[in-house]
Amino acid sequence: MSYQRAVVAAGAGTVCVVDVPFDGLAVPHLPGVERRGERLEHGVVLRILATCICGSDLHSVANPELPLGIVCGHEATGVVEKIGRDVRRVRVGDVCSIPFNVSCGRCSYCDRGMTAHCSSVASNRLGATYGLGPNLGGWAGLQAELALVPYADFNVHVFSDRERAMDKLLGISALADVLPTGYHAAVQARVDVGCSVYIAGAGPVGLATAGACRLRGANLVILGDPNAERRKHAENLGFETLDPSAVDVSDGIEDICGERFVDASVDCVGANAGAAVVNAIIGCTRAGGAVSIAGVHPAAGETGLPLVPLWLGGIWAKALTVTAGATPAKKYQPTLSNAILNEQLDCVALLGIRAVAFEDAPEAYRRFQAGESAKFVLIP
Amino acid sequence: MSYQRAVVAAGAGTVCVVDVPFDGLAVPHLPGVERRGERLEHGVVLRILATCICGSDLHSVANPELPLGIVCGHEATGVVEKIGRDVRRVRVGDVCSIPFNVSCGRCSYCDRGMTAHCSSVASNRLGATYGLGPNLGGWAGLQAELALVPYADFNVHVFSDRERAMDKLLGISALADVLPTGYHAAVQARVDVGCSVYIAGAGPVGLATAGACRLRGANLVILGDPNAERRKHAENLGFETLDPSAVDVSDGIEDICGERFVDASVDCVGANAGAAVVNAIIGCTRAGGAVSIAGVHPAAGETGLPLVPLWLGGIWAKALTVTAGATPAKKYQPTLSNAILNEQLDCVALLGIRAVAFEDAPEAYRRFQAGESAKFVLIP
Amino acid sequence: MSYQRAVVAAGAGTVCVVDVPFDGLAVPHLPGVERRGERLEHGVVLRILATCICGSDLHSVANPELPLGIVCGHEATGVVEKIGRDVRRVRVGDVCSIPFNVSCGRCSYCDRGMTAHCSSVASNRLGATYGLGPNLGGWAGLQAELALVPYADFNVHVFSDRERAMDKLLGISALADVLPTGYHAAVQARVDVGCSVYIAGAGPVGLATAGACRLRGANLVILGDPNAERRKHAENLGFETLDPSAVDVSDGIEDICGERFVDASVDCVGANAGAAVVNAIIGCTRAGGAVSIAGVHPAAGETGLPLVPLWLGGIWAKALTVTAGATPAKKYQPTLSNAILNEQLDCVALLGIRAVAFEDAPEAYRRFQAGESAKFVLIP
Amino acid sequence: MSYQRAVVAAGAGTVCVVDVPFDGLAVPHLPGVERRGERLEHGVVLRILATCICGSDLHSVANPELPLGIVCGHEATGVVEKIGRDVRRVRVGDVCSIPFNVSCGRCSYCDRGMTAHCSSVASNRLGATYGLGPNLGGWAGLQAELALVPYADFNVHVFSDRERAMDKLLGISALADVLPTGYHAAVQARVDVGCSVYIAGAGPVGLATAGACRLRGANLVILGDPNAERRKHAENLGFETLDPSAVDVSDGIEDICGERFVDASVDCVGANAGAAVVNAIIGCTRAGGAVSIAGVHPAAGETGLPLVPLWLGGIWAKALTVTAGATPAKKYQPTLSNAILNEQLDCVALLGIRAVAFEDAPEAYRRFQAGESAKFVLIP
Repeated sequence: MSYQRAVVAAGAGTVCVVDVPFDGLAVPHLPGVERRGERLEHGVVLRILATCICGSDLHSVANPELPLGIVCGHEATGVVEKIGRDVRRVRVGDVCSIPFNVSCGRCSYCDRGMTAHCSSVASNRLGATYGLGPNLGGWAGLQAELALVPYADFNVHVFSDRERAMDKLLGISALADVLPTGYHAAVQARVDVGCSVYIAGAGPVGLATAGACRLRGANLVILGDPNAERRKHAENLGFETLDPSAVDVSDGIEDICGERFVDASVDCVGANAGAAVVNAIIGCTRAGGAVSIAGVHPAAGETGLPLVPLWLGGIWAKALTVTAGATPAKKYQPTLSNAILNEQLDCVALLGIRAVAFEDAPEAYRRFQAGESAKFVLIP
Repeated sequence: MSYQRAVVAAGAGTVCVVDVPFDGLAVPHLPGVERRGERLEHGVVLRILATCICGSDLHSVANPELPLGIVCGHEATGVVEKIGRDVRRVRVGDVCSIPFNVSCGRCSYCDRGMTAHCSSVASNRLGATYGLGPNLGGWAGLQAELALVPYADFNVHVFSDRERAMDKLLGISALADVLPTGYHAAVQARVDVGCSVYIAGAGPVGLATAGACRLRGANLVILGDPNAERRKHAENLGFETLDPSAVDVSDGIEDICGERFVDASVDCVGANAGAAVVNAIIGCTRAGGAVSIAGVHPAAGETGLPLVPLWLGGIWAKALTVTAGATPAKKYQPTLSNAILNEQLDCVALLGIRAVAFEDAPEAYRRFQAGESAKFVLIP
Repeated sequence: MSYQRAVVAAGAGTVCVVDVPFDGLAVPHLPGVERRGERLEHGVVLRILATCICGSDLHSVANPELPLGIVCGHEATGVVEKIGRDVRRVRVGDVCSIPFNVSCGRCSYCDRGMTAHCSSVASNRLGATYGLGPNLGGWAGLQAELALVPYADFNVHVFSDRERAMDKLLGISALADVLPTGYHAAVQARVDVGCSVYIAGAGPVGLATAGACRLRGANLVILGDPNAERRKHAENLGFETLDPSAVDVSDGIEDICGERFVDASVDCVGANAGAAVVNAIIGCTRAGGAVSIAGVHPAAGETGLPLVPLWLGGIWAKALTVTAGATPAKKYQPTLSNAILNEQLDCVALLGIRAVAFEDAPEAYRRFQAGESAKFVLIP
Repeated sequence: MSYQRAVVAAGAGTVCVVDVPFDGLAVPHLPGVERRGERLEHGVVLRILATCICGSDLHSVANPELPLGIVCGHEATGVVEKIGRDVRRVRVGDVCSIPFNVSCGRCSYCDRGMTAHCSSVASNRLGATYGLGPNLGGWAGLQAELALVPYADFNVHVFSDRERAMDKLLGISALADVLPTGYHAAVQARVDVGCSVYIAGAGPVGLATAGACRLRGANLVILGDPNAERRKHAENLGFETLDPSAVDVSDGIEDICGERFVDASVDCVGANAGAAVVNAIIGCTRAGGAVSIAGVHPAAGETGLPLVPLWLGGIWAKALTVTAGATPAKKYQPTLSNAILNEQLDCVALLGIRAVAFEDAPEAYRRFQAGESAKFVLIP
């Protein structure tokens, strides 16, 4: 056993960087981690090259029920340093991206590509994520120098062109979560060549969705966000914007393109905004269109199932298709990796990716929490 | 101009059979009808052979705002008696079924097969239906001896085998609305070979959906209905049933098949049941499954948009696909016509179709309103 | 009846511009035209603004069996000058593009979007085209000052923004045939974000396919053509090229990208090249990929069905999907119109569109026949 | 190491049952087997309960280049007797079916569900099969008492209801190959509710395809076979038949249903019949339809690539979709297992499955070779 530096939850929404134990292919003895001590011969040890901070990290560390000292983070790019005996495809030295969804590749959900709903990697739910605590599967986080990645032959996306990947390290760091999340949102919203799209929320997920829509040939992409700095960033990238705190969404769309409806719309905000965002996107989507909900809406609340007042009649009258849920990131990594490495998509500019020294993680968490229009990547 | 017998709204949920004017290819001068007197060269005059009573007829005639004397009905099978100058495909003597959605075949919605959302057949909305009053396009109803069918080359399904069609007149009467409604619900719910399905509501739409699921190869079809007579009818057809007023839906499903979840589920009840039915089908559908809402949920209420408290977090956590809306009946008529005429589907048994003399329409409306487990077809 | 200028077949592969009769909504008395004198109330008279020369015009006028004096051309953009009594959607003054496939909008093929296989517009086959003679339906050509367009409400794509359309007249002239042909080829080949594609043939259809692949997010597009001028043009547009007369196609692909296989490939050459092109694209497509055949392969030959020696075992071993056939242009016009008008696609640069005075049509035919890397558009 | 009974190739198209070595999780030392002695921790040892004889076994043992003594067979149902260290999902005692395609679950082909084209289980090709020799991956056959199944967590379909599976052992024996082969053929041919289908060949694959078409709701299934016994069997099951040696296929179809074309057609014969079968199904398929080629067409011949003279112009004119290749059996096993266990499909009657004592394998091979209309299953 050895020790390494890692970002851990320090209470009240803060993190700090400390020494934590690491035990190679054996699950480390860490707070909030399940299966401690079990040796995962199907796993690999990854030396982390870049690991992003995600909005869900902020939510997680702000949750008073999260065990203190838990290692955070679920978005990692790295080099394979050691492989288990049962690993056949992945090799030591491979540069790779790790999908944030832990999955086994052997269950009926994985068989259908639903890696966000793997039935074997959490004891109490479908699907699991690294670094988000026992409620999401109890897997150690990836904001550290080293990490143990289970079922590596299934979970690890290896970059065949190692040099090109290293050259674009910041760009490919988005492959672990935010870019596949945005791309899935666009696919679910059936964004195709010639489409118009409204995206609620111009944070990293909204921007990733906007980039995905452009990649898929949308000819009008409008981002709505009350945060002026975020709108400015989106406009600099050539997207249209509106401020949903100042204008009715359909009115704002009409001002931009002369029509009150778009072909597709996406919620990149989630439950914090209550029902308003979802009803706005139901409202501004054309009959026959699709509404995709990327922002998280929790299944359980303190007092039973949380019910959200929705305009179901609008869904019915317009025969909309509504989809929701976490992206199965693995599914999109080959496509999106190609797009980044071939310069179809400049993720660094799109997301405002900023490299931050690993030890400065606490400061990066604070700036992200304060709404700075950037995607922070820790470089160990 | 001539006169003919027709079923008209008589107030307080009742109908009567009276003489009404009919003017061939010119839109008749009748209450609640738009474009009166306009001659429709794209239309045909149909002699009605069979015309069904639908649940929405009941809702319509119970609506105090419906103009009195409006001709009811939107489900017709008949023989073409006269054709307009612009009709090329349909011929006098053709036996045919009329999709309940009025559509033009020339707008961008019809181009995409969305005949339930045709943009040119109503002045104030997308889509129109016969016999449901000015709010649904202002087209005269089809419960009459004769009817004017617009855009006939696009709207009329001709049976190429006239004899076989006449032999199965009661069966094919279901092609106008209820069977395509059920089939669309099954398609939207992605019902395929080997699936399990839960259908909320064992009235005609629920039964049509159940028949459609069987046709599509589902291996378990469960209908939920508090009405014991309806459950009995469904059981006689070989379907499983449960009583959602007596048992939690997931518990009931588990009692039947040992699992708490189905692959797909359908709401065939609509807004009268409030949010409970929709939340039950969200609850009992497996992750990755589809929820299809065939029952009507109105887009507008007396005090603004009606909002329905839904378990959005369940949709999110399970990555469900939710769809809703009226069927584009035309799309499914060739397939379903084949299925009926080739005896893959016995609609008469499935729906409990009962032929009623045309003049007995008021009595049939009363029996249907009282919940009798049957589908009434008026024979002029 | 009046007279107008038109491009007509003059024998031995040549055309000339002469006066021909025109009779408004009545089918004109012209060589090779069926239904002469019939008044089409569903039609419109179009004043032609731009009308392209297509490779199939060259084949057609070179065919010794083509009636002399036939009006040529099937790619037109124009302004509606007169409408028939049964036209409801299209209005006088509308600027529009005419899909080259004549179709009725009322048959079972049109119902399924298969406008290239309409069953009612030709007496001896499925589908029809303007200006290609009795074997393709016997409809008068569109290289003229005025043209009669049947079933106009179904067949005419109206540009809602008239000014913008007029500003990009040369670009939108590609919507009638070549761009939808290339786009359909890309769709059939399942080209999507991140794909690699090989396109055999860098003439107008090959270039349109390449532009469509780029629009759909392909990250590698390789055009193969023995003509150096065409390769140069493609390279100037940023596409990769190879010369299939000098290098084995798979070797050439490997030289470009390091792999011997692409995800998708398209034949934009047709039967003149014999089996070699088709076998090359079967050979260079990855297992699970798709091969799409846009180039024409005739169904009938002088001595029975023409049989082509194909590498069926390659299709089997690699589980390829092979598709072929004419594009249903109408289906793609809204999407592609958006793409051109919103400057996602610069058709003028892509195809090398060159405007030519209408009276210079004979010269333009000669230059196109000589292999000049351009798409000629006649401006009446 | 121990010895067990197995069916081995004995030359000149014959087999015999002999003692062969078996070494648990280590690859056995047998003729034609690769990786001998390697211990597969991802594998399981299966006790075979039923193992079918397939047409490709006949072809294989008739091939003079096949190593003598090779263990035959690739269709097995059994009970797990021992599991490797890396096996997590499968348990000792599980009753299961083994897809005939060996696949790893970890490569880019498996990721996309293309288990018939796994890139890691054969050194010289994509995809591998048990018991067909070094050219198909060099894996030991399954017609034995015990077998080693690699990558078991990915490859093994476990029946959750063990009793029901044991009760229907003969029926579920078809899940290993023939039924998924037929089902894939039907899916690829886009067979759906209301379709008409022509199937060339009424052997086991043709019958499995016919059963799959019925399951998918086809309303007319016609099998063509020159063998009268096979036609009789098909007719007894309620299918239509024709004799392609006595009647033109389109004429025969017209005699049956009054139309010369079907919506979909399938080749269940393969290369032995030369180009005739493929051209017949191209000929009898309606415009817009699909042609699926389940029968094997080899990619390589003795003198280079075998070229087959095909009616490409027919594919073009009718815009057919042509697909081919081996089924990825794993993909369909859950669905088809449900269908068999829930009695939607009686495989024993459909395929004429006959249980044969294991030691009588040589006789069963002879009868199958002689064209007996049956599917033989060896019971160890």
